Amino acid sequence: MPKDNPSPAAALLAERYQGQGPSVPPQVNDVVEHLLSHRSVRAYLPDALPEGALETAIVAAQSAASSSNLQVWSVVAVEDKERKARLAAVTGNQKHILDAPLLLVWLADLSRLARVAEARGIETQGLDYTEMLLVGVVDAALAAQNAVVALESLGLGTVYIGALRNDITTVAKELGLPPHVMPVFGLVVGKPDPARPAAIKPRLPVRTILSREQYSSDAEAEAVETYDALFKEFQRGQSLPEEGWVARSAERVATPKALTGRHVMKEAIIGLGFKLK
Amino acid sequence: MPKDNPSPAAALLAERYQGQGPSVPPQVNDVVEHLLSHRSVRAYLPDALPEGALETAIVAAQSAASSSNLQVWSVVAVEDKERKARLAAVTGNQKHILDAPLLLVWLADLSRLARVAEARGIETQGLDYTEMLLVGVVDAALAAQNAVVALESLGLGTVYIGALRNDITTVAKELGLPPHVMPVFGLVVGKPDPARPAAIKPRLPVRTILSREQYSSDAEAEAVETYDALFKEFQRGQSLPEEGWVARSAERVATPKALTGRHVMKEAIIGLGFKLK
Repeated sequence: MPKDNPSPAAALLAERYQGQGPSVPPQVNDVVEHLLSHRSVRAYLPDALPEGALETAIVAAQSAASSSNLQVWSVVAVEDKERKARLAAVTGNQKHILDAPLLLVWLADLSRLARVAEARGIETQGLDYTEMLLVGVVDAALAAQNAVVALESLGLGTVYIGALRNDITTVAKELGLPPHVMPVFGLVVGKPDPARPAAIKPRLPVRTILSREQYSSDAEAEAVETYDALFKEFQRGQSLPEEGWVARSAERVATPKALTGRHVMKEAIIGLGFKLK
Repeated sequence: MPKDNPSPAAALLAERYQGQGPSVPPQVNDVVEHLLSHRSVRAYLPDALPEGALETAIVAAQSAASSSNLQVWSVVAVEDKERKARLAAVTGNQKHILDAPLLLVWLADLSRLARVAEARGIETQGLDYTEMLLVGVVDAALAAQNAVVALESLGLGTVYIGALRNDITTVAKELGLPPHVMPVFGLVVGKPDPARPAAIKPRLPVRTILSREQYSSDAEAEAVETYDALFKEFQRGQSLPEEGWVARSAERVATPKALTGRHVMKEAIIGLGFKLK
């Protein structure tokens, strides 16, 4: 390789930060390089997954930490085309859900502890509290992220589907969820279509995300301005509307209506049997 | 290597599942093996972290997916011994927080979007909804898990500190958090003490966590029974009280008091400026 080519990690960092990365260089190795190369994939081939890929995702997911080892999460693997289509309808018919062979639905699952305790006549008053829903959401997210890292290492692509939360009541019915189980997000898994490669999305400069000792937003106004300009350039390069990050993000949180159905999340969660005390 | 030695991945799966793993063998490679080898570390050397380790954690974290790229999370790196001690007090003085050189506090952070929008006179009514807190919690968890995977690849140990949620009001004051920022959990980072190695914790059998097409708990009662016995064996091997998983877990959620202060989480979150509509 000619000497003026950057290392793969340096090239990945340049794509991610466009010159706005950390002032101290990160350490790199194969695992770090693998993490830096993440991109969310929205264009899939219809090919079946390789044998053992789902199992790889699950064992990786279960290897993530779980709060007090309570393991208050579960996952449903959906491969049936018609069920995928019905779930995609909740998301505004995101096409990649239809195209890819697998949709994993990650669940904050307090029902297992409820069943296990009930069978033994043990109380579970603690499950009625907001805290325990958060534990389930965090457990599910840590598990899912490990699955993503594992699946990508098999050459597969993934994309999180937060839009399943547009209507968790319908998702819960479709998956036959018992009470005390909340769908947190979906994850599409499949072979990326090499003809439509995904880009690495630039992120906010490190100095906006990381503070030392105490929270600081001193560097933020200038850093966000810089990022907004870089993001417009990225959008231009992707032939997307050149809105910038600020306008695009602000639009997503401007009004309850912008939440695409999720402004009733609290009521929907309570409808799934959580008391949210 | 003699032929009767299992591969590293097979040995790791045997420790994780004690024979209760997936029926189809997972695919393995270096990244998967790395994920399977996770263990939470609670015994640290006081050594400083290698140069660039924190930055590695952050660039890995920012490489995780973020819902609609809103990036509604932040992290505070705490290295000051006195501040660490004050934060450890919230957790019941967990000793590893004092021993290890770094505590990362991961935040669900809606304040950045609030500031950015306010400076431009844009509305952010959406930030008042429960959904947006969940987005922040998920964003923070996905980011943190990538950081864990990266830090472990540098030979460092980590352990999540959910007990910072015992009193998020005190944590928020200590870190100078503005309104609309919630501490989700801490993460201790340091060099594992080789004299006190951490074990791989056995997890529930795959069939209790994974359902196909629709949620099923058919295999659960028997699988949990099996796991409970295995877990007692694990506890015995670790010279821990032989409570089993069921009794230990049930105890943690039996009463509001068992939540160690977190039964007032909803009120505490509202106290941090979230409206939880």
